[in-house]
Amino acid sequence: MTLKDLCAERFSARKYTAEPVSDADLNYILECVRLAPSAVNFQPWKFVVVKSEEAKAKLQKAYAREWFATAPLYIIGYKNKATNWVRSYDSKAHGDVDVSIATEHLCLAATERGLGTCWVCNYDPQILADELPQAEDWEAVVIVPVGHIADDCPRKEKQRKAMDEIVEVL
Amino acid sequence: MTLKDLCAERFSARKYTAEPVSDADLNYILECVRLAPSAVNFQPWKFVVVKSEEAKAKLQKAYAREWFATAPLYIIGYKNKATNWVRSYDSKAHGDVDVSIATEHLCLAATERGLGTCWVCNYDPQILADELPQAEDWEAVVIVPVGHIADDCPRKEKQRKAMDEIVEVL
Repeated sequence: MTLKDLCAERFSARKYTAEPVSDADLNYILECVRLAPSAVNFQPWKFVVVKSEEAKAKLQKAYAREWFATAPLYIIGYKNKATNWVRSYDSKAHGDVDVSIATEHLCLAATERGLGTCWVCNYDPQILADELPQAEDWEAVVIVPVGHIADDCPRKEKQRKAMDEIVEVL
Repeated sequence: MTLKDLCAERFSARKYTAEPVSDADLNYILECVRLAPSAVNFQPWKFVVVKSEEAKAKLQKAYAREWFATAPLYIIGYKNKATNWVRSYDSKAHGDVDVSIATEHLCLAATERGLGTCWVCNYDPQILADELPQAEDWEAVVIVPVGHIADDCPRKEKQRKAMDEIVEVL
């Protein structure tokens, strides 16, 4: 599949079957994540795979949606606020940028393996931090459910702005 | 090429030939960018292709490096601070996340087409804003040079943390 096909095929999957994600698929996905670039190659990230029933139940409190609970596992992308690269000119920290790059590798890799994902950022960050406490300096950037897409998963045609709305040439 | 191959092949290319990027390649890359997901599908972004000699000279002032000036063109990813999605719980704006996703589509697509790229964030944001002024609310997130990789472009083996340093399972 070309990258363009992958980009077109990836969508926000909001219903999964109970079938587990195989270790082979999970390892492939995580290897694509591991290879991602980051500012100054600091790799100020970790990815927490949430698959025990106990941990999933805690996580789901931070984003209580019926569809979300159908996922067989989740991967939470965290940035490290103490070790991420900070631009000297304006003190802009780049942890969100770094974790976002790696997380899109995750979503495209899952798509290639026939799995569904969804970028979830609208969770309650305080509930997440309370339910799955992390060491100081780690902050969640995104939660990605990963699973086999249910036959009746809602799908709609991809809506995107036209090229001339988003591209300028100088 | 599998996505894993693409992720392994992509590297920070820091020397380009004078050969222009073809319109076919540029359009392919921008289509992959256009298809990227964003929070609530707001697509709060624009991508400015800098290829005139005049505009390139201005841009290069913001990141004065000899290798950087070898690129035949640049794409600047901008977020819109007024229209990007903001999480209600903690007022976190997601424009950096969105632009980063789309920009990694850019870099992977260019890799697939045999082209080199480099994520450049260590530019001087004030010089960039002064040299290539934008309408209010638009802020640059990244500059990506795009071009054919020079034969003597520096390459080194990819250094990444081991899987068990970046992955935890709950």
